[in-house]
Formats: sequence, structure tokens, C-alpha cells
Amino acid sequence: MASASDDDPRIGDISEGTVLRAILARTAPAAHSVLGPGDDAAVLAAPSGSVVATADTLVSGPDFRAAWSSGYDLGWKAAAVNLADVAAMGAVPTGLLVSLAVPLETRLSFVEQMADGFREACAQLAPGCSVIGGDLTVSELLMIAVTALGDLGGRTAVTRAGARPGDVVALAGDLGAAAAGLALLFGRFRDGETPIAVDRSMLDAAEQRALDVQLRPSPPIALGAVAADAGATAMMDVSDGLALDASRMADASGVTIALSTTALDALTGGIDISRAIGGGEDHGLLATFPLGTMPNGFRPIGVVTDRAADGVLLDGEPIEHRGWDPYRDWDGSL
Amino acid sequence: MASASDDDPRIGDISEGTVLRAILARTAPAAHSVLGPGDDAAVLAAPSGSVVATADTLVSGPDFRAAWSSGYDLGWKAAAVNLADVAAMGAVPTGLLVSLAVPLETRLSFVEQMADGFREACAQLAPGCSVIGGDLTVSELLMIAVTALGDLGGRTAVTRAGARPGDVVALAGDLGAAAAGLALLFGRFRDGETPIAVDRSMLDAAEQRALDVQLRPSPPIALGAVAADAGATAMMDVSDGLALDASRMADASGVTIALSTTALDALTGGIDISRAIGGGEDHGLLATFPLGTMPNGFRPIGVVTDRAADGVLLDGEPIEHRGWDPYRDWDGSL
Repeated sequence: MASASDDDPRIGDISEGTVLRAILARTAPAAHSVLGPGDDAAVLAAPSGSVVATADTLVSGPDFRAAWSSGYDLGWKAAAVNLADVAAMGAVPTGLLVSLAVPLETRLSFVEQMADGFREACAQLAPGCSVIGGDLTVSELLMIAVTALGDLGGRTAVTRAGARPGDVVALAGDLGAAAAGLALLFGRFRDGETPIAVDRSMLDAAEQRALDVQLRPSPPIALGAVAADAGATAMMDVSDGLALDASRMADASGVTIALSTTALDALTGGIDISRAIGGGEDHGLLATFPLGTMPNGFRPIGVVTDRAADGVLLDGEPIEHRGWDPYRDWDGSL
Repeated sequence: MASASDDDPRIGDISEGTVLRAILARTAPAAHSVLGPGDDAAVLAAPSGSVVATADTLVSGPDFRAAWSSGYDLGWKAAAVNLADVAAMGAVPTGLLVSLAVPLETRLSFVEQMADGFREACAQLAPGCSVIGGDLTVSELLMIAVTALGDLGGRTAVTRAGARPGDVVALAGDLGAAAAGLALLFGRFRDGETPIAVDRSMLDAAEQRALDVQLRPSPPIALGAVAADAGATAMMDVSDGLALDASRMADASGVTIALSTTALDALTGGIDISRAIGGGEDHGLLATFPLGTMPNGFRPIGVVTDRAADGVLLDGEPIEHRGWDPYRDWDGSL
């Protein structure tokens, strides 16, 4: 008689080929793919003669806890954070490569759910993009390293360095919600120091929403190309906190970014301002636009000025832009 | 007074920005890069309108031991194994993305050596290719996930599926040497089960050569495009052992690959035939060519025949093609 574990084998008890076949069966065909997974490398169309490429990794411990994130959540988030980096250049994501390092005791169903998360995040956030390749190895620690590729479709890449005095500073997507969600996890779903499963019935609607943004973010991927078409002078995704990331844009552009509390309050709808400024992982798009060119989907949060002593000001005052640094904040406790 | 550790800080004691700057200072400018590291994503030229993309990861434990591999070795090997996958499609490598997960106690110098290894492997194996992006995170376990991108330059990608009866089966690069090197490490450089530093003075010239192939492989990257230009009908890199990889090519092509012991002996120069057939990690190029078209640098090892019961034969007999499977062989003991 088959036991439950026979139906859902451990990765260590089956062959690499079996795992790969299970993943591929849950992977959508790639619209832009000339040659899909299964050979030494994939071949992806790059119609505009260049390819946008970025890499970001989720590691068990600093980036997630197994008790809090399902396989589906992890696949979704690993896709979303990489898609956001492609979008932030003004490009359209076309393909992902996923390098998965998994412990031997991992259940096949967990890896299958991860493949589902990758597929659905692409389908919902960046239609036409899908997993075109990757690799699988064993590890004592679960790690998901993703490379995302994209196409500029003739647009010039929007860097962090083009913001000009007089531009409007704008944001699309969430701000502070992911940090609020992380605080909920650390504050409410631990037994001592040990993460425990999330009981959503303990959370009100706003808290559930914050948790969703933390575990399964939905950055406004399509707005990246929209912003580039509208004439964005600089753009980046907000992964390490608005204050820190804005300071990076200000430094790269040689300007000061002056943010407004009133504008931020209107945008975050009640999330604590320090969390909105310091909290990372929302992966919204921060962009600057010449006056009168900001497209729908973005909301103004400040203005670009000539460079002052500080790169970022809030209501005219310097602010602490500590942000998120995995080398200092590896325990995730913001 | 500064101590040695002040001169070589632990990763956990310095900022992510400091580490990234140290890495970038050791990274060569990318010949094909439109926009290099430092923004949300890099932009790489893809002049032929498509991009070849592949990913492969080295994880501490299954793929390497810190006692045996220097930072330089690891950077070199992580580059080489990925460059080989690009070459195996008939493409020229143009850029690498490197995702590094490092323990907090890692010394900065170790990461710098890794950057040197990446740079030098690219310079020597695939001139013009360099690291164009990546990311850095902390982890309890050292992991190096690499994505390699390449350009076909107008060539059609050479898959595993095109081998035809009558073709010559050929190999370029090492065969069995990496496995011999791995056996040396496990056999001679352990204290009980614990890996210890390699003392090269204990090794003769052939052993030192095998160790070099294991720790710092030099696949014939440039021969990938040469093979494609010569009309290779199928190609792949031999990462999991000749017998297993040849069986994959045979299955994909619907043919049988008939290998010759005499030809293999001539090629390996004394390495045990079972190691030449079963050992992985050499990352040589296995290719099939129509009669009379095999280019210099490749050596014949067999012929393609109509599909027989077995996909791979050695001197007309079926062979065990166990090969290397990280899910079964994670302790590295071939």
C-alpha cells in the first residue's frame, strides 16, 4: 500500500531528471523563446538587439522562513522581485532562469508549488514572460537564485542617473506594506524565536494585505515600459527602502530628492511614515518625470532639486536612510 | 594598531556597498555591455537578435569544499562551467551574472579572489566576456549561482537533437581528468572524513594536472562556435560523464552513439576507461559531425548509428551510464 510519502517523495529519493520533468510540466511555454529548457542553454529572442539582465536571490534565513512562506509564495516572490528590476529599466520581461538549491528532504510537491508560483507570477505580472531555463542542485539550505531577462523594444534604458532638477518624483506600487507584513510575521507568528505558521484569521483586512505584499508582492511591472515611453528621466525599483534607494538615485544623478510627508501619507494610506521610508521589499517603481509627463499609475511624492548637502530631504529636513542591508539586517528584524 | 583582520574584514562587519565596490574594482569592463553593473539591471548587446542563456550553480558541500578550493578556484570554475554551456550551443559567451550567497564570517579577500577568478577565466577562456551584473546576499552556506549569456552571431543553435546515422562522434577537451582529480582529493586530502588543504608536492605531474582540471577546468570554449561553423549536427558539454551525456544526446536525436575504447584510450592518455566514461565535470564538448567535416581541436571517439536497443554502446556492447547525479552523489564520492 502506498503511503502519503510515496505520493510525495523527498527530492533525495528521486532522480534529478524526475524533478526536472515535474518542474517543466508546470512551466508555461515561453512566448519569446527560440529554444526552451532541456538543452545546454536556452535561446531567447532579443528583437531590439540588446537584452536587459538582472539577478536576485532568495536565501532561507535572511530572505524567508519556511514556516511563513509556501513553495508557491517563494516562487512568486522570486519571480516578482526580478521582474521589477527589469521593469525598472523600462524594459518588458521576456524570460527567467531559475537556479534552485534544495535540501535532500524537500518534498517534490514543494518544488512543484514553487514552479506554479513562478508560472503564475509571470502570467499575472508580466504576460509573455516565463521560465526558460535554470538548474537544480542539492544544498543544506534552500536557495532560489533567479536571473531575469527583458527587452527594451527600442526604448533607451532608464537608469538611476538621469533625474534633473525640476522633475517630479513619483512612485507606482506599494510603499511600506511589505515592511508592515514582515513586522507582523516577526511580531505575531513566532514561538519564542522560532517562526510558526501564519494564522490569517488573527489578522484584519489591512494586515492580511500587508502580509500578502510581503509574501507575494505584485510590483507594477507593466508600468516600467509605460514610464520609459512617457519620458521618465530616472527609474529604479524600491527594494531597500525609499529613503536609501532615493539617496542612491540622487547620488547617481547628482541631485537632491525632496520628499513630502503629505504626499507620502496620501499614498500609503495609514502606514507609519518611518516604515514607508525605511521599509524595503515593496518593489514599487520610483521614477522622475519632467513636469506634466507623469503617466497614470504613478503618484507624485516629491520634487528633484539642485544638489544640496543631503541627497534626500523629507519636508526639507535630512532623514536617516538606513534602509535594508542584508549584511547588517540578516535576521530580518526591521 | 590595525590587526590583520582589520586589513581583511569579515563580510558581516562591512556594508554591502563596500563589498560590491571591491568586487567591481576587480571586474573587467564588458566588451558587449551597453550598461554595466550598478543599476537595477545590466544591458547587454545581442547583435544577432537572440540571446543564449544558461544557469549553473556551485554549492558548498555537493560541488566544492572550502579546504580544497580557493576563492580564485571557485570563481574560475563557476565561470568555466557556465561558459561551456554557452559554447555547447555554438555561441560566443558575452556576459555573466553572478549571484553570491556568502556566510557572514567570510573574509573580504576571499570574495575578491573569487572576482579575480571570474575575470581571469573569462579573459583566458572567452575573451570579451565578463561579469555584467549579479547580486550579493548572506547565507549560512557559500553558494555561487551564475547565469551566462551568449551570442550566436548568425549561427543556428546546435542542440542535442540533430545527430544523424553516419556522423562522426567527436570530443574536444578533457575526459576523465576532473574525476581523477576529485578522486585524489577524496583519497589523499582528507583527515578521516574532513577535507584538508591540498599539498601539491605530494602529487606527480599527471596528478597535478588532474587536480587542476577538477578545481580550475579550462573547457575549449572557442571551439563551440568553430564546431557550429563546421556544421556540427549536435553538441553538448560533458558535465555528468560521457556515457550519461552521450545517452542524452542519443535519446534526443533518436540514434545510437557507438563509442570505441581504442579511440577513447588514445584521447585520455592513460586515464582509466571507466573514469573517462563515468566521470563528470570535465566540461569538454561532445559533438557530432557529418563525415569529413570535423574541425581541428576535436578528436573522433565513435560513430552515430541507427537507433539500437541501447542509446550508447562501447565496442558494440551496452554500458552502464550511471554518470553524476547530484541527488544521489551529493557527497562527491564518485
